[in-house]
Amino acid sequence: MTYRSDLAMECIDASQPSPENGITSETINKNGISINKIKIQTEKGSQLVGKPIGQYITIQVPSFSEVSDDIEGRIFTISEQLKNLLPKDGLILVVGLGNPSVTPDAIGPKTIDKVLATRHLMDEFSRTNNLNNLRSVAAVAFGVLGQTGIESSEIIKSIVDNIKPSAVIAVDALASRSLERLGTTIQLSDTGISPGSGVGNLRKELSKNTLGIPVIAVGVPTVVDCITLAGDLLNLDNNSKNELNKKVSPNGNIMMVTPREIDILIDKASYILSLGINIALQPSLSYKDIIALMS
Amino acid sequence: MTYRSDLAMECIDASQPSPENGITSETINKNGISINKIKIQTEKGSQLVGKPIGQYITIQVPSFSEVSDDIEGRIFTISEQLKNLLPKDGLILVVGLGNPSVTPDAIGPKTIDKVLATRHLMDEFSRTNNLNNLRSVAAVAFGVLGQTGIESSEIIKSIVDNIKPSAVIAVDALASRSLERLGTTIQLSDTGISPGSGVGNLRKELSKNTLGIPVIAVGVPTVVDCITLAGDLLNLDNNSKNELNKKVSPNGNIMMVTPREIDILIDKASYILSLGINIALQPSLSYKDIIALMS
Amino acid sequence: MTYRSDLAMECIDASQPSPENGITSETINKNGISINKIKIQTEKGSQLVGKPIGQYITIQVPSFSEVSDDIEGRIFTISEQLKNLLPKDGLILVVGLGNPSVTPDAIGPKTIDKVLATRHLMDEFSRTNNLNNLRSVAAVAFGVLGQTGIESSEIIKSIVDNIKPSAVIAVDALASRSLERLGTTIQLSDTGISPGSGVGNLRKELSKNTLGIPVIAVGVPTVVDCITLAGDLLNLDNNSKNELNKKVSPNGNIMMVTPREIDILIDKASYILSLGINIALQPSLSYKDIIALMS
Amino acid sequence: MTYRSDLAMECIDASQPSPENGITSETINKNGISINKIKIQTEKGSQLVGKPIGQYITIQVPSFSEVSDDIEGRIFTISEQLKNLLPKDGLILVVGLGNPSVTPDAIGPKTIDKVLATRHLMDEFSRTNNLNNLRSVAAVAFGVLGQTGIESSEIIKSIVDNIKPSAVIAVDALASRSLERLGTTIQLSDTGISPGSGVGNLRKELSKNTLGIPVIAVGVPTVVDCITLAGDLLNLDNNSKNELNKKVSPNGNIMMVTPREIDILIDKASYILSLGINIALQPSLSYKDIIALMS
Repeated sequence: MTYRSDLAMECIDASQPSPENGITSETINKNGISINKIKIQTEKGSQLVGKPIGQYITIQVPSFSEVSDDIEGRIFTISEQLKNLLPKDGLILVVGLGNPSVTPDAIGPKTIDKVLATRHLMDEFSRTNNLNNLRSVAAVAFGVLGQTGIESSEIIKSIVDNIKPSAVIAVDALASRSLERLGTTIQLSDTGISPGSGVGNLRKELSKNTLGIPVIAVGVPTVVDCITLAGDLLNLDNNSKNELNKKVSPNGNIMMVTPREIDILIDKASYILSLGINIALQPSLSYKDIIALMS
Repeated sequence: MTYRSDLAMECIDASQPSPENGITSETINKNGISINKIKIQTEKGSQLVGKPIGQYITIQVPSFSEVSDDIEGRIFTISEQLKNLLPKDGLILVVGLGNPSVTPDAIGPKTIDKVLATRHLMDEFSRTNNLNNLRSVAAVAFGVLGQTGIESSEIIKSIVDNIKPSAVIAVDALASRSLERLGTTIQLSDTGISPGSGVGNLRKELSKNTLGIPVIAVGVPTVVDCITLAGDLLNLDNNSKNELNKKVSPNGNIMMVTPREIDILIDKASYILSLGINIALQPSLSYKDIIALMS
Repeated sequence: MTYRSDLAMECIDASQPSPENGITSETINKNGISINKIKIQTEKGSQLVGKPIGQYITIQVPSFSEVSDDIEGRIFTISEQLKNLLPKDGLILVVGLGNPSVTPDAIGPKTIDKVLATRHLMDEFSRTNNLNNLRSVAAVAFGVLGQTGIESSEIIKSIVDNIKPSAVIAVDALASRSLERLGTTIQLSDTGISPGSGVGNLRKELSKNTLGIPVIAVGVPTVVDCITLAGDLLNLDNNSKNELNKKVSPNGNIMMVTPREIDILIDKASYILSLGINIALQPSLSYKDIIALMS
Repeated sequence: MTYRSDLAMECIDASQPSPENGITSETINKNGISINKIKIQTEKGSQLVGKPIGQYITIQVPSFSEVSDDIEGRIFTISEQLKNLLPKDGLILVVGLGNPSVTPDAIGPKTIDKVLATRHLMDEFSRTNNLNNLRSVAAVAFGVLGQTGIESSEIIKSIVDNIKPSAVIAVDALASRSLERLGTTIQLSDTGISPGSGVGNLRKELSKNTLGIPVIAVGVPTVVDCITLAGDLLNLDNNSKNELNKKVSPNGNIMMVTPREIDILIDKASYILSLGINIALQPSLSYKDIIALMS
């Protein structure tokens, strides 16, 4: 691969969308928010883009770290798009992927901290409190393979087999090709999460394929790979990239580019994601009530 | 119940140990460390003490928050006792119970942070690095029911069914009856964890009964229940306790007594527990190597 | 002293307020919020209550940890009362007292994290952004004597002498005599902070006396001293208290009573205090703008 | 300036050291640790290198995040070099610069957390505990201008004027030109800290010039500026750099390059610095005692 990006939008080029390729792409702009929808419908399309067959929705908003009156606008856009990807009924399991101790990777676990879990309230609580309209939600995060010794996908499969949700929402930090997208972009997709896209490492894949239920991936780009950035800025060929790679990964350490204010960005992005998810999952609660329950 | 204690040692009175009751208790002292072993062997004994049949080892040491040369002594005592309770071979799953956001309840999750997970290294790593003697360990923590919507025991059962460990170590914060034991006591037991001891809420129980494999509970008392303390200090009868209960739980809030330095105590206790667990699980590694790998 | 309380309201008894004693006390209730104002006007009054001459305003609200629509009501009550105690113009220095690593003591430092510092913006920023109405504010917190080796009051005096504010606001955690007041009460006072009330340890005192400018103390009770609680519940005499003291302070550790949810309480209380302070200090900004700038 | 580096070692080129330029540079290697000493003795030398007159000691060690037996070796090298720069007697004030909420900038405040403050113990404690050999140390950190509204240098000057130390040690995160130096390098210097080197912004400078006492700067590089990196890797001229600058700072956000494991690196580096400082300041305490007091 000549660069690394988890955003379908960055992996597609302008000439690719066509009926023949089985790829469609459309973008709409509304109130300063742009929504791009890419559908990959065929194996051929999947090969061309290097991403699994499915739907990719990329929402671009003003930077999360800016003061802005439009925070509600952004959040409702996210929750509306997310709702469209989810089954109408049934328990939803929200999982936060990533390492809570590595700042740019912590967006999944931090989002889970604020997702309202309700599954345990369904019996007693709902009935006595007239909350019959509450949707059943479970929410877990448990770190990464190096911390647990267990693949995240194995833990999630174990839990799915046990509590039998109708769908999984998987929240994760993404790598982008572009600095401008850090903290300004959310990608939703119905393809789940497949590390090494298409390579088919089933042990690690989180998808309908492996779990038997829809897996909605929700991600925010928080880093740009150093090589990808350098290569892009300079139109380097692969040979030069390899050489560069040696220079920018001294001692095998992975170097990454982030905004200086990455800690703040992660705090804000995870708050916005959890709010968007809660609104999508609990339409019977008011915005104000959700905010109050989250704090 | 007239008071609340998770320590078997505090639930037994001097007259109870006897062959007839099916209870034995012995205490040895060595280098300033006292080790008490209680065995409850019969249903009758279990009824008398109000704890499940099994073995309870209580290690009392100088306070965790004191500067002391004997930290290694304490840790080796813990790891030695723990080793005796564990199966000789096979994967061990270490789970951290409790809420990481509630300081006195965070000892489980904080211990997990420092437990060395090795299960994912067994194949490639061990062979190439001559680490064939490494024991396979997995380690997880995921918060409490109110955060996840799933009983901890359900998640653990799901994982156990999937990765098939030979035993579980469950680390948890305990309630004690005595202020002196906060931060100076560790209880190990082979009975697992049964909330409401003996009541048999199978949904919440973590034991051989529910998981099919040994469950070793490792706990440190971090709080004293306010009523228990007051009742004890004053030899109150149950009526007076009920009255007191209303006064000390205004608005239904649970009040607890902790040392002022509870944050430091939790940090130290979780460090000592994780070190003790790592030493018990990895006898092929030196003390120095384990310290280095943990930091 | 027979008990410990930092709340003037708890140190006064019903018979004391009188012109002869130089003490007045009045309470008003509005929308579920109660506001008590005590004025101690004479040395005699100060002796009787055991608190310095000055004004003590105690605001009692529904618990900070309850979901409630009235959060704005509480906050505006605080900011209005605080505004009355402050000089109309000039730089305000807000200081957060207490140890950020000890949860119930962290309310001062955590409040400072959210207080909007503007002093450095006054020159360039205000003029170019038409923010001439912004009040100049500095905000510092630096831990406790055991961490720094310097009395907080020494550091604050150094800074005051240098930046010459018109008043200091000092935010601190308080001890209460009553469990019901934990997390439901705010005390404002124009007397500053005098450890050992009236004893006159000038090295530690933060007051007009030592700094030469008004010092407004803002505090929330977060703990009840174990002995105070026990003594109160049981109407113990001083002898019994001393005996009790030995039992509840094993190894000289100070034991305290807090709600189980103390971490959440501290988060909410510090948020509410910082919001109240920001609103009091920046009347030219809207509620919404202040919230946005704080996040 | 065509690139940004806080390391004198990176600002000097091989031809510059000469008696005529007033610059000397020597490097010694011992046990895998390299120590470079640069002395800038004249105004001319200062102009050439772009750093103030004084001494710069750069210690390069194996990466902080590697498991290594030689941690004590590294620490004693640091403390020995530091000791040489300090006055033999008198109170030392250690200050931690930087923003504790921005991970790569948090090295100063995190180091302060572990520096042993003793100034408040000197009177009573030392005498009664035969600790007459303890050196008096104060330690403070208070965040950055945007948080406090006060320049760090103003706060430090206020405190220095009040407590009158014999020298200041200022701990700070540095920017490096080279990825290899992140987390492997420590720079000690007797020149204090002068933002914009030589430009002479006295309001911000921390030096003998402004404080009247020696200021020893202790820093670890934690980031590489994105432009500096790209420019270096590609030998870009200044025009190209300016163009690149626009691309890599979208919306004016500063982008930086860090190792993926930056959180761990900051934890380890601040631990090593505080240990080195404590050993340098308290020669009467054993290594083991210092470790115990720090934990």
